Amino acid sequence: MEIRLGIVGLGTVGQGVLELLERQGGFYASSLNLDFRVTAACARSEKTLARITDPRCLKTSDPLAVANHPEVDVFIEVAGGEDVPKAWVEAALKSGKHVVTANKALLAKHGAELFPLAAANGRLLLFEAAVGGGIPIVRTLQESLIGNDIDGLACIINGTCNYILTQMAVNKASFSDALAEAQRLGYAEADPTFDIDGWDALHKVSLLASLAHGKYVDYRRLTAEGIRNVSALDIRMAEELGYEVKLLGVVERVAAKDGGEGRIFAAVYPVLLERSHQLAAVHGVLNAVYLKTSAAGPLLLTGAGAGKLPTASSVISDVLAAAHQSVKAGAAPTDAAFFSADNAASLLSIDELETEFYLRLTAVDKPGVLSKVTGILGEHGISIRALSQKPEHDPENVPVIILTHTAKNARVMRALAEIDALDIIREQTRVIRFYK
Amino acid sequence: MEIRLGIVGLGTVGQGVLELLERQGGFYASSLNLDFRVTAACARSEKTLARITDPRCLKTSDPLAVANHPEVDVFIEVAGGEDVPKAWVEAALKSGKHVVTANKALLAKHGAELFPLAAANGRLLLFEAAVGGGIPIVRTLQESLIGNDIDGLACIINGTCNYILTQMAVNKASFSDALAEAQRLGYAEADPTFDIDGWDALHKVSLLASLAHGKYVDYRRLTAEGIRNVSALDIRMAEELGYEVKLLGVVERVAAKDGGEGRIFAAVYPVLLERSHQLAAVHGVLNAVYLKTSAAGPLLLTGAGAGKLPTASSVISDVLAAAHQSVKAGAAPTDAAFFSADNAASLLSIDELETEFYLRLTAVDKPGVLSKVTGILGEHGISIRALSQKPEHDPENVPVIILTHTAKNARVMRALAEIDALDIIREQTRVIRFYK
Repeated sequence: MEIRLGIVGLGTVGQGVLELLERQGGFYASSLNLDFRVTAACARSEKTLARITDPRCLKTSDPLAVANHPEVDVFIEVAGGEDVPKAWVEAALKSGKHVVTANKALLAKHGAELFPLAAANGRLLLFEAAVGGGIPIVRTLQESLIGNDIDGLACIINGTCNYILTQMAVNKASFSDALAEAQRLGYAEADPTFDIDGWDALHKVSLLASLAHGKYVDYRRLTAEGIRNVSALDIRMAEELGYEVKLLGVVERVAAKDGGEGRIFAAVYPVLLERSHQLAAVHGVLNAVYLKTSAAGPLLLTGAGAGKLPTASSVISDVLAAAHQSVKAGAAPTDAAFFSADNAASLLSIDELETEFYLRLTAVDKPGVLSKVTGILGEHGISIRALSQKPEHDPENVPVIILTHTAKNARVMRALAEIDALDIIREQTRVIRFYK
Repeated sequence: MEIRLGIVGLGTVGQGVLELLERQGGFYASSLNLDFRVTAACARSEKTLARITDPRCLKTSDPLAVANHPEVDVFIEVAGGEDVPKAWVEAALKSGKHVVTANKALLAKHGAELFPLAAANGRLLLFEAAVGGGIPIVRTLQESLIGNDIDGLACIINGTCNYILTQMAVNKASFSDALAEAQRLGYAEADPTFDIDGWDALHKVSLLASLAHGKYVDYRRLTAEGIRNVSALDIRMAEELGYEVKLLGVVERVAAKDGGEGRIFAAVYPVLLERSHQLAAVHGVLNAVYLKTSAAGPLLLTGAGAGKLPTASSVISDVLAAAHQSVKAGAAPTDAAFFSADNAASLLSIDELETEFYLRLTAVDKPGVLSKVTGILGEHGISIRALSQKPEHDPENVPVIILTHTAKNARVMRALAEIDALDIIREQTRVIRFYK
């Protein structure tokens, strides 16, 4: 059976998709009875389009010409962009095509419209490649863990940040040096804001949270804290304490006190992770998703979170799923429910998060400093697990490390606002939360 | 839509399946429009059957009454047994039911008949629970990695053995003490042969090898070496060298010299694993599968390899897949091809394996011993990477540790036969292969 593909975007991932189709095409034909043919392709430059040699293929610079093409069964969107591709995906779904996309920004921003549209048209909207590159986390949540509640999820889901943190830890590099190195190697963009400040991770976390809990989680309502303020000093201190600093995406369900449905907490922020935690061993550009499941127990999936072929591998797995579906009928009804704005999750804000905190104050070396600081913490009901003052050359700028017992985020922030206003405090206090 | 289930076996896993169906039934009905009802159940004792309270359910001690029941859509076999369940599965498939099983022994032994029978009847034969408990490795290989060749696979796939090895390493326990502890905790059977000698792992490895390479791999043609001969001393020596001892299932494709199709190597045996390898951190009863893939890069899946709810979780994911298929039509054609005896893989035997070796000789402390031993190794073309003689109290029984460079397994075995026949050698030399 012939499956006709339309592809928009022949950048790195798009080239990878074509490469894998060529490599594996014989196997799909012989073992699965599926003949894939690219019948329409869109790229900005004619030179790029020349990559496609089949004379029957429509080559165009107009994405809508592919989306509306009558001889396309599966529409592959690997062009990127938060808003522009929305119209293409809508056109493809409305004209009866399954859609495969690697675009997390598009889905995080417009998924609540696109998934219901797919269901209304009886088509699939598949996105394995949008989260975790080559790691099969979407299918694992959608299919393999359908007998489970997901009690907790923690993920290292942005390779750029994990690379930078690994470099800072291993080479004692500063944040800016590690970022420059990541840029030199192509792991970070010229404008790294989107990765460094946690927005890319937050897009993915919102998708994972929706899949894990079957409720729509809008990333615009979540908190992202990036790694811009993590200093080499913090990483050294964490190391001395037996911890690694990681940028984590965290999703938890917090039980309701009245026995009701409970609320979802989802956020991205740097954490201290015990060195023995499985996620602490995930280094460099690797990604990983750690799941606490109600029946299957703890599960860890680790792999390449980005890159030409890992991302293309996930696109291809979706193309095959869509092809099998083309042969049959119907649409997966869950996504539409999970991503519908009518079905929004009840959210827990980061203010309400209860966890342990690492605080690094910068204070003048004067008698009474510690009693003032601990007094303020005590007034806010925050109890201290450990405190140490590091001798430094400069008595005007002494680092004071405080580890707290479990405390509510909002209380800690209020206490720090008071503390940082003291004239004995020289710099804004650095905060890293623990993850256990 | 109502999906009617027939279940044979209400032991630990069977009870887990019923429990998860009860817990998640409301979600399946509301979100997926699937109403599951157990219409027939088989167990040996009436007391066990009393667990099922639905008066419409047929309760029987005859598995064939469930397999042939006209009002069953999906037949769940969680009774166990290598040969007896074959007739049940055949009857279920022939009467038009999808089959879900957790039985690796059945599939390893009779899969080459059962998978083609499923395809001939247009039914699914699903077995996520048969390999790796709650880890979604079957679906990952079948669906997520369909764009990849699997260049290598290494797995910790028997929790009993991994628990024993972990205990030996952490508590400096002897093999027999660690085994007794595992039996006390219910991690090992009263007769532990099947686990300890690697047969359970080999069943699973043969299934993984077939999935990874799309060729039938018959476990009866593979080698299993268990952990019975791994001593506390070996584990200590390995530790000093920076390695962990693990019982690994290994699957590799070895390229043909003439550019032809190449051969498959699949086996189970204890290995030394560098401490920094991701699999080295998999402790206790956890299982893990490490994949070297051609496009997605290296992937690691870690989780609970056995137990009531993890195994039931995988059964349920298959039941859902079968239910979705019931709603549609057709069968997955790949398994039938992968598990057909006509499509047997070309196999590489363990004799032909080329790897590095750890050898522990027990020799008399006499001049000339080392030159004799190294002379024999040299004659067989085996070159030595490191050698150390450990001082012991007993000069009649001195451990000599030899690490080799890469050598062919058969050569090493021939050399050791000669060495062990020397009168200066007091015990059979212990062999552990490296895995990199």
